[in-house]
Amino acid sequence: MQFVSALDRVSGMRGILCLFEGVCAGAADGYARMLGKPAATLLHLGPGLANGLANFHNAQKAHSPVVSIVGEHATWHRRFNSPLANDVAGFAKPVSGWVHMLEAAGQMGEAASRAVSAAYGPPGTVATLIVPADFSWSEAGQPGGAAPIRERAHVPPERIQEIARLLHSADSVGFFLAGTALRGRGLEAARRLAGSGRARMVANRFQPRMERGRGRAWLDRIAYFPEAAEKMLARLKHLVLVETEAPISFFGYPGRRSELAPEDCALHVLATLEENGAEALEDLANDLKAPALALEPAADADFAAPQGVLTPRAIGQVMAPLLPENTIVSDEAVSSGAEIEPSLRQAAPHDWLPVTGGSIGQGLPVVLGAAVACPGRKVVALEADGSALYTFQALWTMVREQLDVTVVILANRRYRILEIEMTRTGSARPGPLADAMMDLHRPELDWVHLAKGVGVEATRAATVEEFRKAFTAAMNGRGPRLIEAVL
Amino acid sequence: MQFVSALDRVSGMRGILCLFEGVCAGAADGYARMLGKPAATLLHLGPGLANGLANFHNAQKAHSPVVSIVGEHATWHRRFNSPLANDVAGFAKPVSGWVHMLEAAGQMGEAASRAVSAAYGPPGTVATLIVPADFSWSEAGQPGGAAPIRERAHVPPERIQEIARLLHSADSVGFFLAGTALRGRGLEAARRLAGSGRARMVANRFQPRMERGRGRAWLDRIAYFPEAAEKMLARLKHLVLVETEAPISFFGYPGRRSELAPEDCALHVLATLEENGAEALEDLANDLKAPALALEPAADADFAAPQGVLTPRAIGQVMAPLLPENTIVSDEAVSSGAEIEPSLRQAAPHDWLPVTGGSIGQGLPVVLGAAVACPGRKVVALEADGSALYTFQALWTMVREQLDVTVVILANRRYRILEIEMTRTGSARPGPLADAMMDLHRPELDWVHLAKGVGVEATRAATVEEFRKAFTAAMNGRGPRLIEAVL
Repeated sequence: MQFVSALDRVSGMRGILCLFEGVCAGAADGYARMLGKPAATLLHLGPGLANGLANFHNAQKAHSPVVSIVGEHATWHRRFNSPLANDVAGFAKPVSGWVHMLEAAGQMGEAASRAVSAAYGPPGTVATLIVPADFSWSEAGQPGGAAPIRERAHVPPERIQEIARLLHSADSVGFFLAGTALRGRGLEAARRLAGSGRARMVANRFQPRMERGRGRAWLDRIAYFPEAAEKMLARLKHLVLVETEAPISFFGYPGRRSELAPEDCALHVLATLEENGAEALEDLANDLKAPALALEPAADADFAAPQGVLTPRAIGQVMAPLLPENTIVSDEAVSSGAEIEPSLRQAAPHDWLPVTGGSIGQGLPVVLGAAVACPGRKVVALEADGSALYTFQALWTMVREQLDVTVVILANRRYRILEIEMTRTGSARPGPLADAMMDLHRPELDWVHLAKGVGVEATRAATVEEFRKAFTAAMNGRGPRLIEAVL
Repeated sequence: MQFVSALDRVSGMRGILCLFEGVCAGAADGYARMLGKPAATLLHLGPGLANGLANFHNAQKAHSPVVSIVGEHATWHRRFNSPLANDVAGFAKPVSGWVHMLEAAGQMGEAASRAVSAAYGPPGTVATLIVPADFSWSEAGQPGGAAPIRERAHVPPERIQEIARLLHSADSVGFFLAGTALRGRGLEAARRLAGSGRARMVANRFQPRMERGRGRAWLDRIAYFPEAAEKMLARLKHLVLVETEAPISFFGYPGRRSELAPEDCALHVLATLEENGAEALEDLANDLKAPALALEPAADADFAAPQGVLTPRAIGQVMAPLLPENTIVSDEAVSSGAEIEPSLRQAAPHDWLPVTGGSIGQGLPVVLGAAVACPGRKVVALEADGSALYTFQALWTMVREQLDVTVVILANRRYRILEIEMTRTGSARPGPLADAMMDLHRPELDWVHLAKGVGVEATRAATVEEFRKAFTAAMNGRGPRLIEAVL
């Protein structure tokens, strides 16, 4: 309460109300992905924190810096089993790189500075500061000093030379890239290295942000399913890791290894999660004198204007020429995403925000935070109907803050990914009762009504023509709107 | 996946799809509150469980038996930092009285039986069984034996005699009642004891279920705010606890004790949480030869038909004569609830499902589970707009399962309870920025659109007349519907 009332006394703080804690957590993730600096979330007690955990999990897997302030009962009240009492630190631990329970009001300033430092990492993390109520209403003394921020470490030259020697001497070398390697200088250096023909470049699929579009190197993300992923890495004898661990399958499957690289493939580290992978790639490209090659034209350029039946592929084709430069595109389209993505290679330069921790309900909160972080940029959320319903309360805050977000709901009325996974785990073909557990038809979700319920302008598109009209209007307009694309 | 596919092979299981894990968790709570036996929830991995934690917290505080099955990665996959990997047991512990990670497929049957036993308690609890994926797709051997169920223990006669002596010898004795004491035999015995003039009866506010209405004893619940609660217990020299701990304030406040009973009030235990409080009360009433007195007429009987402006009090007055016998009423009306409750004293006998753990978003899932548990009974959910939005996905499942639930949204467009709490914590009067953090006006939530979005019939009522018409129709009809009562 004191934190909230301080909004009127302390300048430089912007309070944004979210109607569900999972929205706050995901919005802080999106903000961090775009700006590389933490937003603070303010949640209340164990149960309030519990509601934010799934998106804190995603933020943590994205290495997003987040300062999570959680109000706790007054110190003398904590020993009682009152209704809201629970183990706040216990809830926080699985999703936080740093957890601190404040022990005296006078330590608040210093603890807040330490939380900010901890959030930055690197790698970024969720830093949880638990504040008992009586420390909020007592005098807290001095503010903490400016939070020291640790920069990513430089990769030592010997390591760069070691990888350079590897590229000179060995065939079948691949790079597995993440973090800063997928943006700006890192991406450009990766292109030079790939262009020199010496290495295959593959991006980690579960990344906070990738820069993409015309004029930029297109790095294939490793495939979701292990068969396809293994194929991408087959024949590699060496895999060089840049700001990532080795590639691992999303799930374990009967009779399959979890590791996606071949068994006889040696792993090398160019840059750890704490180090500056972009700079290391650039140093490496310079060391190898890799030329700045012209971009290869996209092989599957497909600007053919689709017509008629609305498919995920057609949605990508319609979107690509219409996306304004610098758009931020979030992908929580789940099973529909893979067919949309290739067309966007031809779109204007944009940022791509993928799923990181795999917990659904990430997309709408993340675009909310990204839009707050980047006023003036267009934001597009590609959402599955099943996942969008998890944290759809985010739409309300988009209206309240007048954010320029276009939400595209890919409404296939199914938990389609579950059907696929069910067949993969070797389960018998689902019978009618099992099948009903993956079906969203009865009753049908009506996203136009849902959007209007929280004040968002919305339209339904059942054909390519309807989608093109709605998406064009959204790109030309401003403010939140939703398009229900019926697949 | 194997659990789901088994729905088509194993009889006696009913699969109910919920579109958010918090709905599953709360529905299991509601089911247990009505039937005293566990439903099983099926969630997936740490993040899926995380989404259910707030309502598992509420279930745990309600002492509801729940069997929570959580799918975990395959055993060999767990050591990798794959996207969804997290500490499943760590998430489960704060909300579970029993957590077990299955260690071999062959132990599945026995572990399942143990989970069911553990859930029953007494007191009931959330029993979490974590099942690695490979144990689901491997042969599991034999089913476990029938789960042994422990009954509530009888209170020893000496303890009953001790309390009887207390009532003979002391003045100013109160009883603080919970659990089975608030229903059936327990409630009747409490009335006899109160009627004998020997003791003041006060119910714990945060209870899973209370039986109420015409022809039943009306036990006042202890007040929410400590000043009023302390007043109810003032002058008591002895407080006898029945299936509950001593009364504790919801929050701690500056300069206030957490305990609500006077400092010089001695605490006595008639029945612990493991014991049969209803039986003990009956034994005590018999021991004291307390007569079965006629019910005192309700002091504040108020069947005056209100008109015009719609207030929470008017809503209670309209509802009372219209509620069919045996209705199940859930109260998550938060700040509006206190004004509705008194009128329902005159309603037909009904079950009342209060808030238990205080984590908002409980109401809609709990009525979903209660309606599944009790087909043929009318179910009414009193919901605040702020809390209903937390788990509003429950409405979809109500349509899918064609449950006879009427949801009344008390739309005051505010987090009113936060405003009250803000003034109580001694914060300065909120400035405009702080005030905006408690305001749900911009934009207005439109519950009629929201309900239609998930297939629920809905109407808005802005006057008493409109509310009466809508509520009458709801009581005469069948199936889910929603009334947005604009306050």
